[in-house]
Amino acid sequence: MAKYVYFFGDGISEGRGDMKNLLGGKGANLAEMTSIGLPVPAGFTITTEVCTAYYDNDRNYPETLAGEVEENLARVEKLMGKKFGDSSNPLLVSVRSGARASMPGMMDTVLNLGLNDETVKGVIAQSGDERFAYDSYRRFIQMYANVVMDMDGDILEHILEKMKEEKGVEEDTALTAEDLKDLVFQFKIKVKEELGKDFPTDPKEQLWGAISAVFGSWMNARAITYRKLNNIPAEWGTAVNVQSMVFGNMGDDCATGVAFTRNPSTGEKVFFGEFLINAQGEDVVAGIRTPQPVLKSQGSGSMEELLPECFAQLMQVQATLEKHYRDMQDIEFTIEKNKLYMLQTRNGKRTAKAAVKVAVDMVEEGLITKKEAVLRVEPAQLDQLLHPSLDPDADKSVVAKGLPASPGAVSGEIVFSADEAEEAAKLGLKVILTRIETSPEDIHGMHAAQGILTARGGMTSHAAVVARGMGKCCVAGCGDIKISYTDQQFTTPSGQVFKKGDVITLDGSTGEVMQGEVPTVQPELTGDFGNLMTWVDEYRTMKVRTNADTPHDSQVARDFGAEGIGLCRTEHMFFEGDRIMAVREMILAAHVEGRKKALEKILPMQKEDFLGLFKVMKGLPVTIRLLDPPLHEFLPHGDDEIEALAKDMSVTVDTLKAKIESLHEFNPMLGHRGCRLAVTFPEIYDMQVRAIMEAACELIKNEGFDIVPEIMIPLVGEVKELAILRANAIRVADAVIAEYGVEVTYLIGTMIELPRAALTANVIANEAEFFSFGTNDLTQTTYGLSRDDAGKFLPFYVEQEIYPCDPFVSIDQDGVGELVKLGCERGRATRPDIKLGICGEHGGEPASVIFCHKVGLDYVSCSPFRVPIARLAAAHAALMEE
Amino acid sequence: MAKYVYFFGDGISEGRGDMKNLLGGKGANLAEMTSIGLPVPAGFTITTEVCTAYYDNDRNYPETLAGEVEENLARVEKLMGKKFGDSSNPLLVSVRSGARASMPGMMDTVLNLGLNDETVKGVIAQSGDERFAYDSYRRFIQMYANVVMDMDGDILEHILEKMKEEKGVEEDTALTAEDLKDLVFQFKIKVKEELGKDFPTDPKEQLWGAISAVFGSWMNARAITYRKLNNIPAEWGTAVNVQSMVFGNMGDDCATGVAFTRNPSTGEKVFFGEFLINAQGEDVVAGIRTPQPVLKSQGSGSMEELLPECFAQLMQVQATLEKHYRDMQDIEFTIEKNKLYMLQTRNGKRTAKAAVKVAVDMVEEGLITKKEAVLRVEPAQLDQLLHPSLDPDADKSVVAKGLPASPGAVSGEIVFSADEAEEAAKLGLKVILTRIETSPEDIHGMHAAQGILTARGGMTSHAAVVARGMGKCCVAGCGDIKISYTDQQFTTPSGQVFKKGDVITLDGSTGEVMQGEVPTVQPELTGDFGNLMTWVDEYRTMKVRTNADTPHDSQVARDFGAEGIGLCRTEHMFFEGDRIMAVREMILAAHVEGRKKALEKILPMQKEDFLGLFKVMKGLPVTIRLLDPPLHEFLPHGDDEIEALAKDMSVTVDTLKAKIESLHEFNPMLGHRGCRLAVTFPEIYDMQVRAIMEAACELIKNEGFDIVPEIMIPLVGEVKELAILRANAIRVADAVIAEYGVEVTYLIGTMIELPRAALTANVIANEAEFFSFGTNDLTQTTYGLSRDDAGKFLPFYVEQEIYPCDPFVSIDQDGVGELVKLGCERGRATRPDIKLGICGEHGGEPASVIFCHKVGLDYVSCSPFRVPIARLAAAHAALMEE
Repeated sequence: MAKYVYFFGDGISEGRGDMKNLLGGKGANLAEMTSIGLPVPAGFTITTEVCTAYYDNDRNYPETLAGEVEENLARVEKLMGKKFGDSSNPLLVSVRSGARASMPGMMDTVLNLGLNDETVKGVIAQSGDERFAYDSYRRFIQMYANVVMDMDGDILEHILEKMKEEKGVEEDTALTAEDLKDLVFQFKIKVKEELGKDFPTDPKEQLWGAISAVFGSWMNARAITYRKLNNIPAEWGTAVNVQSMVFGNMGDDCATGVAFTRNPSTGEKVFFGEFLINAQGEDVVAGIRTPQPVLKSQGSGSMEELLPECFAQLMQVQATLEKHYRDMQDIEFTIEKNKLYMLQTRNGKRTAKAAVKVAVDMVEEGLITKKEAVLRVEPAQLDQLLHPSLDPDADKSVVAKGLPASPGAVSGEIVFSADEAEEAAKLGLKVILTRIETSPEDIHGMHAAQGILTARGGMTSHAAVVARGMGKCCVAGCGDIKISYTDQQFTTPSGQVFKKGDVITLDGSTGEVMQGEVPTVQPELTGDFGNLMTWVDEYRTMKVRTNADTPHDSQVARDFGAEGIGLCRTEHMFFEGDRIMAVREMILAAHVEGRKKALEKILPMQKEDFLGLFKVMKGLPVTIRLLDPPLHEFLPHGDDEIEALAKDMSVTVDTLKAKIESLHEFNPMLGHRGCRLAVTFPEIYDMQVRAIMEAACELIKNEGFDIVPEIMIPLVGEVKELAILRANAIRVADAVIAEYGVEVTYLIGTMIELPRAALTANVIANEAEFFSFGTNDLTQTTYGLSRDDAGKFLPFYVEQEIYPCDPFVSIDQDGVGELVKLGCERGRATRPDIKLGICGEHGGEPASVIFCHKVGLDYVSCSPFRVPIARLAAAHAALMEE
Repeated sequence: MAKYVYFFGDGISEGRGDMKNLLGGKGANLAEMTSIGLPVPAGFTITTEVCTAYYDNDRNYPETLAGEVEENLARVEKLMGKKFGDSSNPLLVSVRSGARASMPGMMDTVLNLGLNDETVKGVIAQSGDERFAYDSYRRFIQMYANVVMDMDGDILEHILEKMKEEKGVEEDTALTAEDLKDLVFQFKIKVKEELGKDFPTDPKEQLWGAISAVFGSWMNARAITYRKLNNIPAEWGTAVNVQSMVFGNMGDDCATGVAFTRNPSTGEKVFFGEFLINAQGEDVVAGIRTPQPVLKSQGSGSMEELLPECFAQLMQVQATLEKHYRDMQDIEFTIEKNKLYMLQTRNGKRTAKAAVKVAVDMVEEGLITKKEAVLRVEPAQLDQLLHPSLDPDADKSVVAKGLPASPGAVSGEIVFSADEAEEAAKLGLKVILTRIETSPEDIHGMHAAQGILTARGGMTSHAAVVARGMGKCCVAGCGDIKISYTDQQFTTPSGQVFKKGDVITLDGSTGEVMQGEVPTVQPELTGDFGNLMTWVDEYRTMKVRTNADTPHDSQVARDFGAEGIGLCRTEHMFFEGDRIMAVREMILAAHVEGRKKALEKILPMQKEDFLGLFKVMKGLPVTIRLLDPPLHEFLPHGDDEIEALAKDMSVTVDTLKAKIESLHEFNPMLGHRGCRLAVTFPEIYDMQVRAIMEAACELIKNEGFDIVPEIMIPLVGEVKELAILRANAIRVADAVIAEYGVEVTYLIGTMIELPRAALTANVIANEAEFFSFGTNDLTQTTYGLSRDDAGKFLPFYVEQEIYPCDPFVSIDQDGVGELVKLGCERGRATRPDIKLGICGEHGGEPASVIFCHKVGLDYVSCSPFRVPIARLAAAHAALMEE
């Protein structure tokens, strides 16, 4: 019979820390902390398998579950010496979610469960504090009505506010026990009025209501969005943790807090915690009151000063935890009447900078190995590190300052709601989402915005935690600014007013908010980063190249560790400056002679392009793709432009329009482009091959370079196309080599970007010395999906999980990946030493890079800024194989 | 050492009839005829391997060839008692091409070879006829200068014409020996003048010149075109036959002729031959003189009457040949001084009608088996049989009459050159190529034209033979009309003038030429056809369905033997009559409710459509594809139309334009269409499923029909799309079934038309009860090739043999076929009993049908008129496996 419930308490756990899949992160860690002797309130975990069974079985529980819950509740009662639902000595419990991966604030929690008009008397008896007891009771009703009974939270909040008004008090804490008792009474009446049913008084009924609410919250909209953004499968499910309550709000010898064992923003080995005296845990996370520091060195009102004994104990616990888990911990604790309880520990989320520093430091501390350090840093996260920061020389006008919650420097127009942020982003606008505080409902807007600015909340507030996870710049708790949603503006301490649409700049590393757009500079990478990347390269077996068309981009990529150019798109060069005129002349020429004349004008310019690239990439391989897009892309389409061009070209507007019309294609993606252009107009590639080879020969002859140009022919679907163009290319290349009288090796290869190319790779390999998988086009053709047109349904597909993710972002391993695999196998069967790479945008996406390693590619190629990500992902891939 | 030359003569042959690949058709048959004792002038065959070696080796011959030719020439000399180049008793030879497959008139031939000023004396001595000798000599020079020395044939022809003018004679035959001798003299001077070199006098030099010319002609433009049209690979090469000359032009006891052992047009078992007294073979084929019949029953001046002995011998020979080859023969013979010689036999080309009749008759005659009969008819040829003929009730104005050279009835505009025919066809015009006579240079025009009309030439003229091979309607030898190329017109006996562009109608079965367009009717299929198709269905294992959207097409297809509908395209129904307005209303609706309202209007119309189809196809399976094209296809694009629609729809022009703009796609082929439409707008398919099921339920309930509707969901690339839409379809279908209270089985399946669908067919099969391979779209995506845009390069690709054939016509077995194979294997792995079919246009193309059989499809589906072709091809496939 399946076991659905796992007990923990008083040093004894049925679960373990490595049972995250079954118990969720929180449950596994509660079990683990219990078993290593840390002070954890007793409780039990209902497994994730129950969640899965619940959904598989039309929201019904396994039959044996109820019995197991009863049994474990009895063990908790026994251990705590209290009884659930007892009117003299009642046990109160919390009910919390806990999934395999952390999903902060996404799912529901109910505290103080077990209270009713009878048990509240027991709490009074236990605590000797009637006010505390009724405060807990009214909180419980508020939370339960909202979370479990699905009643609008504002309704009861409104009654509370009204009571405060009547009593003439500002703070909740100023309400008396009698007031709170009255509130409880009013709340229950209101619940009945609103929902047409009584607030449940039976603690068992309350318990099952809460358990179902937690399981139910797994499928709420916020949780679904979060999972999508974080690639968490719905099948994982959540566990439910039922745990005896301890109270941080029983007086001034009580407190609650959260902490990181190291600084999650910088990675420094400094304990970093915040707490609130006389509060419950949710108060800290929700950012309602700005908390005090744990360490004296981090500000006034510290726990170190106010609760020194508990502080000392906490320091011990955190050291134990780091040593035990061998990673930075994110912990939650509660102090009840001067006694410390641990409620949660988990590996702490951190910025990329912190991830790198913690990993490198821990190697130095002897806590982890270099391999572990490499695996500790998520490749995708590195993106943050490579974000620009403010230009230190730029003028900046700082108008406010908040907490440096998530690093980076960004500018954008102010918007005040998540929906607006999303809409603006769709229009291509850059926006700063500006909120008093954020909540899980704002996730989509945070995702769409460049950066997030909040007026309330600390470093561990919702905004800060989520922004760091996303790698978004965030300034949190910026109490300096007064936000008015009504007026759609905020006011700075100096009285300056910023309206919706005004541009501001955030510096997430300093917390500064600046007027207008402040210039940024590229990040300087730290020594820790350098160390880590050295280890990365030790373990990595797959090469990483870059997609770059200019010497500048090539240089950036080299600085990021690129080991060559995997894709130089020559058509970008065709648009530059005055050469577009020569290109148009070529297109409009009626005969081959006219085309050749125009191409002769382009030749020296292309040669200059290649000279520039070869110089930067000295000694490294450079793959140059010959012209790919259809010719009509180089012609104008607006009437004015056509008129201007006709004048410039000395042709009539009608002639030009007729030519443009004749080049029109219904499906240009599937049209007259790539090698098809060169099969019909061979002189275009002849010119390009000549430009490449002249550039190479010149540098070899005059400057002693060592260059092996890789000439890449795109859109091959049939080997004969390649055979013809290869023969042409060899003819031109050998002629240039003979002219220069030097020795040059060069390679001719092809893109594999059509399904037929992958399927017939065995014969294509006869004519190709290398393959580069063009997975952008291969994705379009394999799915029959135009990237340009997919906007009408692709977002919906991703949202509805019809596609597990956007196949243009992460390679579709089942379809496109299958073709890549076939292409590799078949290509190698014909030519065992064929060089294999990828140059689609997938080359810089970690999951895709790992896939490329698995199928045995020699290299991936990606945009310059993603080179370090690809290097790290390649190292992960190699280490995961060990 | 390789043997390059094969001797034949006097009952002894080194070759055999089954050595066609090595000796070519003509060489193999000469060898075979020799060895079965027929009178064949001695000679030898240089093998096709020499041709291949010649081209592989830069037009050089194998070293040992010259010796072998010498040796065999000596054997011929010995056998004939003559000597090549001897001045007293010279051997003259013919040099002819002969490829594996017949390529009539495509390649070069040289006759009378071995003549010079010395040997001509020997010919005079042998024949006692100086005029004949010089006539042969001048013919040889004309032919050799043209064919071998590549001199314009008109130059010497002009001298001949001038001579006739000077002598005041009309016919060549009126020239005297002296005149001809003078001509020879003038010819040789002219050759020297034009080419700067002497006409070769050395017979050996002449021989090698002719051999090289024949090999060279394998690569001439006409031959290349012919091979492409007939799918003959260039690698096959041609053989060269060197054979002693016999002369049909030595006097009135001489003749030359060609014949078919049965009527090649109707297939009747009646010997069908034509001959010319005192002529050489080329005179008959070239259609310069209109020949006389062999049989008395077929006209006056028959061979039966004029040369009764030879006639009797010929009758014996033809009977021997048919019995030996077990097929209708196409023979060439020459009578020299009352002695019959056989120069050629081969299986005769025939019309589809003849092919069917000959095959069925031969089974009845006990010559061949039923299986052989089935294999004797080429599937593609059946197309001819299914062509329409003139409506017998139609008024027709016959303006001229020629020979019924190739059946069918067609109308079109008159054009007078092959180039014009081709250009007009490109513009979509239907034309009749009208020529005094045709030559191999006209092939492309014949291919482009609807039909061919010639003023000269018999049933075996170039025009007639080629047109029958192509299955084109042809009226040949229509001496009634006087054609003037200069005036671009022809005149009928009544003096009526037809200009270029005027429309005429040809009846290839009667030889009638009619004014204007005469209505045609569908062909009535003969009992022979019925018999053959019965046998076809006995051997066939794969089913044949049809692609049909209307009851009419469905009925035609059933009459042709279709066993169900494999593809009913519902979008065609969307365009019909006033329903397009409802469709547009649906598209323009802003919300789902508006769409539903519009769809409700379409529902009853769609239901009517399906009622019609089900009624016609009673008892047979019907696969209905739900809406596939992008919605913008239903909206107008011209300004006027938009304005009219806006008015009709009561929306502003701007609103309508904005909607049209918003639906615009860069690559509609890869856009928001097929199942993607239904994932985003499920109500569309819901309506269609309801219409299908209501129609089915109604017929089942009210009329006791037995219907299993097959609902097909297009463009699935990911199984989840299908899972969602399948669930929707089941919901709607089951609701309808419940409403009607009947029992209905229905199947839900999908098109496999995207590479990803084929690759993931194993998972897709979980949700599909059948697959239908949509090889049109699969070809587009596998090649990355838009059918609509490929016109700019696809013809060039096919011409240059970059693609072996147009992949939209015959399935690309290496790429697209590989995906079909994968799709079948993977689909069956998941669901062994999954129904597999194809509904791309390949379903009616014989090579593709054979491929479909090989990969194990359950059925192919094709347009109604191709159903018999598919049935026959499927039988071939099954028989080829035995």
